[in-house]
Amino acid sequence: MQNFRFENETKIIFGKDTELEVATEVSKYGQKILLHYGGGSIKKTGLYDKVIKSLNDNDISYVELSGVKPNPRLSLVKEGIDICRKEDIDFILAVGGGSVIDSAKAIAAGVKYLGDVWDFFDGKAEVGEAIPIGTILTIPATGSETGDTTILTNEEGWYKRSMSHKNIRPKFAILNPELTYSLPNYQTAAGGVDIMSHVFERYFTNTLDVDITDRLCEGTLKCMIKNLPIALEETNNYAARSEIMWAGTIAHNGLLGTGRVEDWGSHMIAHEISAMYDITHGATLSIIFPAWMNYVYQDNIDRFVQYAIRVWGVEMNFQDPEKTVLEGIERTKEFFKKAGMPTSLSEVDISRDSIEEMAEKCVLSGPVGNFRKLFKDDVVKILEMAF
Amino acid sequence: MQNFRFENETKIIFGKDTELEVATEVSKYGQKILLHYGGGSIKKTGLYDKVIKSLNDNDISYVELSGVKPNPRLSLVKEGIDICRKEDIDFILAVGGGSVIDSAKAIAAGVKYLGDVWDFFDGKAEVGEAIPIGTILTIPATGSETGDTTILTNEEGWYKRSMSHKNIRPKFAILNPELTYSLPNYQTAAGGVDIMSHVFERYFTNTLDVDITDRLCEGTLKCMIKNLPIALEETNNYAARSEIMWAGTIAHNGLLGTGRVEDWGSHMIAHEISAMYDITHGATLSIIFPAWMNYVYQDNIDRFVQYAIRVWGVEMNFQDPEKTVLEGIERTKEFFKKAGMPTSLSEVDISRDSIEEMAEKCVLSGPVGNFRKLFKDDVVKILEMAF
Repeated sequence: MQNFRFENETKIIFGKDTELEVATEVSKYGQKILLHYGGGSIKKTGLYDKVIKSLNDNDISYVELSGVKPNPRLSLVKEGIDICRKEDIDFILAVGGGSVIDSAKAIAAGVKYLGDVWDFFDGKAEVGEAIPIGTILTIPATGSETGDTTILTNEEGWYKRSMSHKNIRPKFAILNPELTYSLPNYQTAAGGVDIMSHVFERYFTNTLDVDITDRLCEGTLKCMIKNLPIALEETNNYAARSEIMWAGTIAHNGLLGTGRVEDWGSHMIAHEISAMYDITHGATLSIIFPAWMNYVYQDNIDRFVQYAIRVWGVEMNFQDPEKTVLEGIERTKEFFKKAGMPTSLSEVDISRDSIEEMAEKCVLSGPVGNFRKLFKDDVVKILEMAF
Repeated sequence: MQNFRFENETKIIFGKDTELEVATEVSKYGQKILLHYGGGSIKKTGLYDKVIKSLNDNDISYVELSGVKPNPRLSLVKEGIDICRKEDIDFILAVGGGSVIDSAKAIAAGVKYLGDVWDFFDGKAEVGEAIPIGTILTIPATGSETGDTTILTNEEGWYKRSMSHKNIRPKFAILNPELTYSLPNYQTAAGGVDIMSHVFERYFTNTLDVDITDRLCEGTLKCMIKNLPIALEETNNYAARSEIMWAGTIAHNGLLGTGRVEDWGSHMIAHEISAMYDITHGATLSIIFPAWMNYVYQDNIDRFVQYAIRVWGVEMNFQDPEKTVLEGIERTKEFFKKAGMPTSLSEVDISRDSIEEMAEKCVLSGPVGNFRKLFKDDVVKILEMAF
């Protein structure tokens, strides 16, 4: 186990009707807020009305900024920063999924910064003071609700980049599993893949002596393997929805990566696909992860054997452990397929011609990943294997 | 899964040499501190000198209060409160195990309270403003390093009582597994039992649909089952010591109990034994838990079958599931025995004559536990089964 630091002060308010507590929480931090959300879905479900009523009943004034898209954009963030400055906003409430939260984080970091907010994303500046944010989560997926990271797409050149700072971690996250009943199955499944991928990025490590986090990772994956198919079958199953929602937070609140080198190579590759083709994040991960696993497993057979046996219940093939590994990878891929997710680039109409460009952009700041360091050639090969 | 709230903002600084960072952390909160510790062990190991040097090098002044005993006492807490008031202390640094941290928490809560600090423990007052505390942990056991609870013994009547408040949660916890190398095996084992018991108190629940926390509980227990024997065999095994230390925090930082009714009956019984006989907390738990399990398992056979199979790898006896349960309980007891811990009251020279009094005191504020509510008669029976 390696030395580490861990802290995560986001307050979780979990369960039925918890969105009704939003004004009580908001009022601890601000009196004039930016209400940030995506499109019409929170209006259709009635969540928007509940939030507005709660704010009005508690004399919290608000300015709205909607229109956050999946793979949130820099231009809207800049608009949000302008509004916050003009209106003297002191708190941002993000109502939605990871894209809305990430957009809110970027706005929060940019309001008091005099330069271009993109500076934080390409490493030219570090976040200073940020205005506080809170969230009502509607899509369990990105883990952004308690994370200190935001991922943004710059339309000029279509770069998708992330940045992290503790000052942009949400103060509270309201998680009501009932709010996820209305998600289309594709979005539930994409979120599920994202959650599992956050565990994969930590689980596949060469750091030794990481028993406790291995077990926590395996447990989180097993919880997803059981509950994702249930939620897809019975969309209003509260038990399954709550397991997925809480697993989504646990998968990415930092705990599962403590004491170990994390990987994140697959996420970097997946981000390039999303940036160029605007494909749902989870769908790029269900495509890339099986290919990545097949490309790298020989570097550390033991770890992949453990994965196959402990996570998927594969029986150990003592004569040929590699077969155990391949069975584990195959079950991963099959699980994604059964959940309705693509597992090859050809399914999502990506042209082989773009492989070079995606690989090039992916390693722009150097090789990606840690389980195996991936250079441009490696990324090309993984993308080819993913067809 | 039930509705819940979860927050834990304690910063963890984990790994080799992390105690050298103490002054940097302390200086974020205070400039004149109370250095609180137990006896001579931190002097013998050299930790005391390192802390003093770090404080001196960073111009942090300090007043010392040592002498914390296992099952920490109210009288020393009162002494600490007096010192803090007289010396204008603005931060308490607890260097030691759970007893030292609990003592520090009680002092922190009492300094700005005009009444008797015991009021917090018998429910006559709620904690208000508390001065901040931080800790360098030397014994992984109580989980107090990130918890919001303190347990104190009132020498007048020998009552052992707990109280919880978020204002007494440590700001930071420095965890260096090397600092636990010098623990006598008995203390390592008692700490291990305490850690496992914190998981038991959450794992044994009748709340349904708690997959994710079940898995996290099981994983934490499996980590302890693997690593405790290694640490007892090779006291300087860094890997095993670090697994135990991190598991100890995870077991009791609140995460494993999210969304479920917790039990805590066994702890209540164990506290009465410690209060009357001043026996190490972990030793009372290794005695009480197997007895408690045998007393209550029939209320929810399924849960105990799951425990036996998933935690201990017992094979399911499909013809007679109860046999599976009993095997799981037996393995628990055997594990404690092999670790050198007592598993019966007769081993620790407790008289049967005191059963009535302990049971009486235990249920003074009503029945204890939730898996099964335990009344005086139940406590008597469990104590009898523990002989």
